[in-house]
Amino acid sequence: MAHISLPEGVPGIRGLMAAYPEAQKPLCDIAEALLRGPSSLTPGERETIAAYVSAGNQCNYCCQSHAAAARAHLGDQAGTVDQVIADAASAEVSPKLNALLAIADKVRRDGKLVTAEDVEKARAEGADDKAIHDTVLIAAAFCMFNRYVDGLGTSSSRDPADYVEGGKRLAQQGYHALDYAKIRGDWQRPS
Amino acid sequence: MAHISLPEGVPGIRGLMAAYPEAQKPLCDIAEALLRGPSSLTPGERETIAAYVSAGNQCNYCCQSHAAAARAHLGDQAGTVDQVIADAASAEVSPKLNALLAIADKVRRDGKLVTAEDVEKARAEGADDKAIHDTVLIAAAFCMFNRYVDGLGTSSSRDPADYVEGGKRLAQQGYHALDYAKIRGDWQRPS
Repeated sequence: MAHISLPEGVPGIRGLMAAYPEAQKPLCDIAEALLRGPSSLTPGERETIAAYVSAGNQCNYCCQSHAAAARAHLGDQAGTVDQVIADAASAEVSPKLNALLAIADKVRRDGKLVTAEDVEKARAEGADDKAIHDTVLIAAAFCMFNRYVDGLGTSSSRDPADYVEGGKRLAQQGYHALDYAKIRGDWQRPS
Repeated sequence: MAHISLPEGVPGIRGLMAAYPEAQKPLCDIAEALLRGPSSLTPGERETIAAYVSAGNQCNYCCQSHAAAARAHLGDQAGTVDQVIADAASAEVSPKLNALLAIADKVRRDGKLVTAEDVEKARAEGADDKAIHDTVLIAAAFCMFNRYVDGLGTSSSRDPADYVEGGKRLAQQGYHALDYAKIRGDWQRPS
């Protein structure tokens, strides 16, 4: 059971977003900007970073949601997401994404772990400033999302099938597609 | 030296915000909503939580900035921020804030560490759902801000005197007071 009162049957961050619209709006804005806005990284690469960081933080809801979004973006390369989650170093991704995933994992543990050498390695594989910036901020942002979801004890399904539709919606329509007022419905937040 | 090109002489998150306006806007929105928007916690209590989490993550820039903001809010109670940073358990803060700081520190380490007992303890001291929600999301958000600032290797001063004016500005004018286009000036982001 979640640590605070939330609309029933709405899992993960969705229940929080329905219940706390003052946080929902800027959180959706940041997800949209980071994962779908202009970048030198593809949305599929960025969702893969989000899923990887969430896996490292053992946040089931975020990992499943963003792995599903990454699969929806990546088409016939969808299997690489699961390879990255299982073992990033041996995953069949570009050398550039491989180097950026190493940076993302360091940021997840502690931003101060990132070295000039880590960044040089990514640059040598073709990462520009924007790719390095976005990797660091995506990893940092999922350290927030993961803790928000887990710190309030929200529920989530373990079955990947439950995330397929949501992943397609995120990939196709983005982070402002859900009507949270409708999800909230008659539910009233305790005063 | 920072890991990416940034405007010279603009420390911490301010240089990032000047250089990456697509992230600046939603990040300022989330800080404004969490730290100054309607809440059952005072802005001084919320800035104290932000400074405490940033201290735990050893993020000098964020800890100094938000400790200065907390001091500006707290007036003759300003010294409690430094007590919290030094040793939260023995700080002269309310039993409610004491219980919420314990939750914030668990969220900082891993959201899954928060127990029903931690939340019950905070409720017994007067924390409502909104206070618990805001504590968890502030702690989570500073796990993002801290990693953004440190993961990109930004610079920061160690002298608390350098943060006094900024702390007052945050307390009085909030998170949308700075003109980042003006700070950016003629500086051009590498393409």
